[in-house]
Amino acid sequence: MTELLSNREQKKEALKALLLRIHNGEDVNSLKEEFRAVLSSISPLEIPIIEQELVKEGVSAKDIAKMCDLHVELFREAVKGTDEVEEKELPEGHPLWVRYMENREILKDAEMLNLYARTLATTRDERMREEILGVLEEIVGNLRKVGFTHYNRDEMLTFPYIERRGLTAIATVLWTKHDEIRFMLKHLYGLLARRDEMPWEGFVERFKAKAGEASFALSDMVFRENNIYYPTLNALLSDGEWKAVRMQDDEIGYYKVNPPEWDPGEDVKPLQPWQINPELSAEELLSLPKEVQQALKGQPLEFDKGQLRRDGDLDLGTGFVSVEELKAIFEALPVDVTFIDKDDRVRFFSPGERIFTRTPSILGRPVQLCHPPKSVHIVNKILRAFKEGRKREATFWLRLGPKYVYIKYVPLFDRNGNYLGTLEITMDIGEYKRIEGEKRLLDWRD
Amino acid sequence: MTELLSNREQKKEALKALLLRIHNGEDVNSLKEEFRAVLSSISPLEIPIIEQELVKEGVSAKDIAKMCDLHVELFREAVKGTDEVEEKELPEGHPLWVRYMENREILKDAEMLNLYARTLATTRDERMREEILGVLEEIVGNLRKVGFTHYNRDEMLTFPYIERRGLTAIATVLWTKHDEIRFMLKHLYGLLARRDEMPWEGFVERFKAKAGEASFALSDMVFRENNIYYPTLNALLSDGEWKAVRMQDDEIGYYKVNPPEWDPGEDVKPLQPWQINPELSAEELLSLPKEVQQALKGQPLEFDKGQLRRDGDLDLGTGFVSVEELKAIFEALPVDVTFIDKDDRVRFFSPGERIFTRTPSILGRPVQLCHPPKSVHIVNKILRAFKEGRKREATFWLRLGPKYVYIKYVPLFDRNGNYLGTLEITMDIGEYKRIEGEKRLLDWRD
Repeated sequence: MTELLSNREQKKEALKALLLRIHNGEDVNSLKEEFRAVLSSISPLEIPIIEQELVKEGVSAKDIAKMCDLHVELFREAVKGTDEVEEKELPEGHPLWVRYMENREILKDAEMLNLYARTLATTRDERMREEILGVLEEIVGNLRKVGFTHYNRDEMLTFPYIERRGLTAIATVLWTKHDEIRFMLKHLYGLLARRDEMPWEGFVERFKAKAGEASFALSDMVFRENNIYYPTLNALLSDGEWKAVRMQDDEIGYYKVNPPEWDPGEDVKPLQPWQINPELSAEELLSLPKEVQQALKGQPLEFDKGQLRRDGDLDLGTGFVSVEELKAIFEALPVDVTFIDKDDRVRFFSPGERIFTRTPSILGRPVQLCHPPKSVHIVNKILRAFKEGRKREATFWLRLGPKYVYIKYVPLFDRNGNYLGTLEITMDIGEYKRIEGEKRLLDWRD
Repeated sequence: MTELLSNREQKKEALKALLLRIHNGEDVNSLKEEFRAVLSSISPLEIPIIEQELVKEGVSAKDIAKMCDLHVELFREAVKGTDEVEEKELPEGHPLWVRYMENREILKDAEMLNLYARTLATTRDERMREEILGVLEEIVGNLRKVGFTHYNRDEMLTFPYIERRGLTAIATVLWTKHDEIRFMLKHLYGLLARRDEMPWEGFVERFKAKAGEASFALSDMVFRENNIYYPTLNALLSDGEWKAVRMQDDEIGYYKVNPPEWDPGEDVKPLQPWQINPELSAEELLSLPKEVQQALKGQPLEFDKGQLRRDGDLDLGTGFVSVEELKAIFEALPVDVTFIDKDDRVRFFSPGERIFTRTPSILGRPVQLCHPPKSVHIVNKILRAFKEGRKREATFWLRLGPKYVYIKYVPLFDRNGNYLGTLEITMDIGEYKRIEGEKRLLDWRD
């Protein structure tokens, strides 16, 4: 035991010396091999303990974080499964490459969470505690973004591709675990916010336990993704599918990664899930990770061959609807709209019960003739400001009997910035003004 | 003078005797000729004075109102212009017939307004004053509805037909006068509401003067319509146009008239303003009222031949738009929508910046797979309630960072009541909750 301690003491001193050199400005990469040599002599289980001691001795969180990069790399090498796709084999910017890069960041932050939570529990100094709590708030706040970015991107973008191919169970299991992690992090965030409402000892023990669980769940998800889910995607998705994923990845956003552009080629057409042939070939089946092959043995694969576009459907760019569905959508909107075209003529209004009645008789009518003569000059002023690009909206509100009517005018432009017309939007906001508190999906009662 | 007074005294006694018989239950129509005989011996200018005296002597407003019917009829006969279309020539339920019938009611109520305002000014009895004020509140309240119904119907339904034919000036003059009358009535309504805030004498003199002006303006409009505007419409509009007007008249509503159905024939196609040939024939020009012919001499007629429907436009029932305009409309909406079809598959979402990101990857995806597994059972419950017709909406609200997110699910049905799918509507209501007071069109600053 003494020997082990003294051994650890030596390693710690070696690490501290390296960290001091980072702190004094030396490049991390140039020290990489030296770090690797030291770190590789430490068991993965020992690392958090040493890091914890370093923090207690005053090494800054920033420096520790730099070391964590290397530690995580080491850790990954130690536990790497046989099915894991080497991210080095993937082109930079490829959606899978991006996901592996994010997982490094997630793993690092998960380690940091655990490390700081344990350090907090053994810290006696009041000022030090506050500093650590500050770092923990930042880490937990960051990690909550994993749900909005990294997890959300798979839930919305890659799951549909494997669902179409019948691998629905994988998606459901992962999403359930994502939600458990979201809940854990939300809980940690709440604990931190309410820490003054409970005795210190009770708080810190609970926090340490919950942080440990969250850290474990986050790391566990990283390993599931790296070893099972990503290899599955890699075995099944074509370049066209990845191209579509990447375009949409950008819309949702990333976790601590700012990936370079990636395009498999101009001739590759992006393929959405509803455009693919969902049937699995024998070759594809055999190239799936062992765990997935195992899971598939028990159930018949149900490919989803539902056709999205029907005869007569309109292609609206973000979906395919029939004219009948479109009319019903406008009728159901909680806002009334009236559209005047670039020549100021009424071209369309939404049907159904409205705040201000609109009848087909006004179609084609110049908007200037649809207003009381007294206010026409204002209508013209607004339209001029819209057409000249000086204003992007004009809003009004007034009480009308029991209704609180909100009116919004918005100019519409095409992709080239040409003026298409102006939309009038009318709604009763009285109902919204009376809403308080929250009512969530799970509160719904039949 | 004495003789004149005594003469009036006799007529008043004769009227009172008749009113007493009405009050005791005799039918107005059976007394019509007797009333006509008495009323015809009274100058139209004398009638309000006598009615006023009757009110002061305690004849009920209800009985006076019945007499007013006859009085108005008499009055109309006395001032009828040569161009007035005899409503008896029009089929019952025809939009012009309806307008003439409404004008009788408007004229009667305008007379009542003036009568009661003058009576109020000479009434000393406190209790009597309160009773008259009650009647005045009702009359003014009713007359304000003329603006929402009778005037609004012409502004929205018949003006576009004459505007297309180049008679824009008539529409503008009438609308300006409509608005003056709306303003007068709003002012009277306000005066009545604030009567306790000013000395009685000041209030009653002002009210009498303003009521007189409003009454005059209302009657003046009746005569302009009956003698100039309606004959113009009668000379120009075809059965198809009247059929379209009548269908839309019903949507806006009527002033104190509940017209019977009218249809010029199943083979007559309703014609909207944008569907007519706007050119005037010589015959049509010559059949216009003298006043309109006179006004047209000074200016060239500018027919509006603008074509509403363009190549490739979608017919949405309430307008014609291009797919490009439609996309821009959905993008500009202050609500985000996502539509799932009758098979629970995502079919369309509105583009642009959204509260909850939607990507094309979810098109065609079963909605059950778009939700966290934990809440899928609620989604299914809601959809079942929609499909079985047990619920017509499900609403939720929650705070999300700086946003107060309101979510509404609405089932859509076709004309035959078949379920088409469900619309999810999402919006940030935080902005609306902060709105106070009013901001009207005329408050707009460039």
